[in-house]
Amino acid sequence: MHTGAYSDFKNNLLDQASELRARIRSGDHTAPTSGQANSLLQGNVVILPSEWAGDFLLYCQNNPVACPLIGMSQPGDPALPDLGHDLDIRTDVPEYQVFRNGERAEKVTDLKSLWQDDLVTFVLGCSFSFEDALIRAGLSVRNVDEGRNVSMFRSNIATRPAGRFSGNMVVSMRPFNGADAIRAIQITTRLPKAHGAPVHIGDPALIGIQDVNQPDFGDPVTIRPGELPLFWACGVTPQLALENARLPFAITHVPGKMLLTERLNEELAVL
Amino acid sequence: MHTGAYSDFKNNLLDQASELRARIRSGDHTAPTSGQANSLLQGNVVILPSEWAGDFLLYCQNNPVACPLIGMSQPGDPALPDLGHDLDIRTDVPEYQVFRNGERAEKVTDLKSLWQDDLVTFVLGCSFSFEDALIRAGLSVRNVDEGRNVSMFRSNIATRPAGRFSGNMVVSMRPFNGADAIRAIQITTRLPKAHGAPVHIGDPALIGIQDVNQPDFGDPVTIRPGELPLFWACGVTPQLALENARLPFAITHVPGKMLLTERLNEELAVL
Repeated sequence: MHTGAYSDFKNNLLDQASELRARIRSGDHTAPTSGQANSLLQGNVVILPSEWAGDFLLYCQNNPVACPLIGMSQPGDPALPDLGHDLDIRTDVPEYQVFRNGERAEKVTDLKSLWQDDLVTFVLGCSFSFEDALIRAGLSVRNVDEGRNVSMFRSNIATRPAGRFSGNMVVSMRPFNGADAIRAIQITTRLPKAHGAPVHIGDPALIGIQDVNQPDFGDPVTIRPGELPLFWACGVTPQLALENARLPFAITHVPGKMLLTERLNEELAVL
Repeated sequence: MHTGAYSDFKNNLLDQASELRARIRSGDHTAPTSGQANSLLQGNVVILPSEWAGDFLLYCQNNPVACPLIGMSQPGDPALPDLGHDLDIRTDVPEYQVFRNGERAEKVTDLKSLWQDDLVTFVLGCSFSFEDALIRAGLSVRNVDEGRNVSMFRSNIATRPAGRFSGNMVVSMRPFNGADAIRAIQITTRLPKAHGAPVHIGDPALIGIQDVNQPDFGDPVTIRPGELPLFWACGVTPQLALENARLPFAITHVPGKMLLTERLNEELAVL
């Protein structure tokens, strides 16, 4: 189906990202991936025993803005061929967070010693995927410009529960002036699989955020006079649901340290 | 080209609006048209001698967000057949503002005694046209709910001059909470011929508006705690350009008292 021009275009992008992909796989790159591998879709990762996979799939279905499902593995299979031809979920995330009984336990840079044959991987779209679209439209993305991880917050916006999974939405924040905020809403609306449009703009307290300079995950970024904070649903939301569900064992990515796929952001765009 | 179902749908809407259309024509309805004749495109009106028509056409071309041209007459011809099968610009606006040497002179409810055979009519899309789209999407439009004319302000956003025409943009303001503001931006983006997306959101002072409760045209509306003001480019902008141009003679609609066309808002939507 793909023309030669498309293949050339995409292969060129994959070549540009190949060094980063190799460094993540080898454990050499363990930093956040914001601003990296432009144009390629990045993913949030949730890995849990197949016993809970049905409930979690319903949780994604119930909360498509926070949990836009872009890939799901077979139990025990570390491959996700729809997202990358040789992708191995055990090695291809910069850093992993292990959850035990709902508590954040150890962080690791690969899953070789933790893998089980009943583990199911879910990959959810990530707002980093639209940062490239914003930058191409001439907007400045503060966390990229400042070389920081994006600011993420626990909001008071409830998600719709499914089975044992429930909790409030985590949101990521990027500040823009009024005109750029309007452009950012338009641009991100095109990318529902990367959380789409923001869920809130303006006063952080209205969604339960007391201090926008003290994120719950990631780094603070500068908000300049006259700028409005825009809040997008974030794929860290399931990590709160994992805390609440108190599953004996689960694994996620560390916030901001995403799975780099071989899909283009534009392949998942609408309009 | 039109199917029977389309004709039935449209004729039903025109029938619903026919009483208002007749009352405007007779001079009985001289009030603002916000919230009236839902689904039908409303227009801002600028009428000026043909000597200035070329410059004004370029001014519209240079400023398509503030001045989205949807109709233009032949010199001296009061008809605008593309906008309404029997529309007569001399009678079909609720109230007219006459400009003499750039000054606001008399207001009149028809142009029968003022018509000249060199007058050219320009009709520009109006934000009232998207109020219906906002309401259908479940949003509350404050000026409609409060039965008031929309609030309009002289901003400090410069337009791009053309010939004698220049000046700052007039904007209309509607307040929304954060989530509804995002929806309003998405919805109005679809309607570029009704000014499209807002030009600003948030602090009014950033676009030169000192007191959002004291509009330069129209009425004040309530802004509730937690709401953000959204500002759309407004078709009153040319009235400032007329003031600056100091033409000997020109006519516009009175702000908020629009020309009701026979086109549907949806006919001019994109996406």
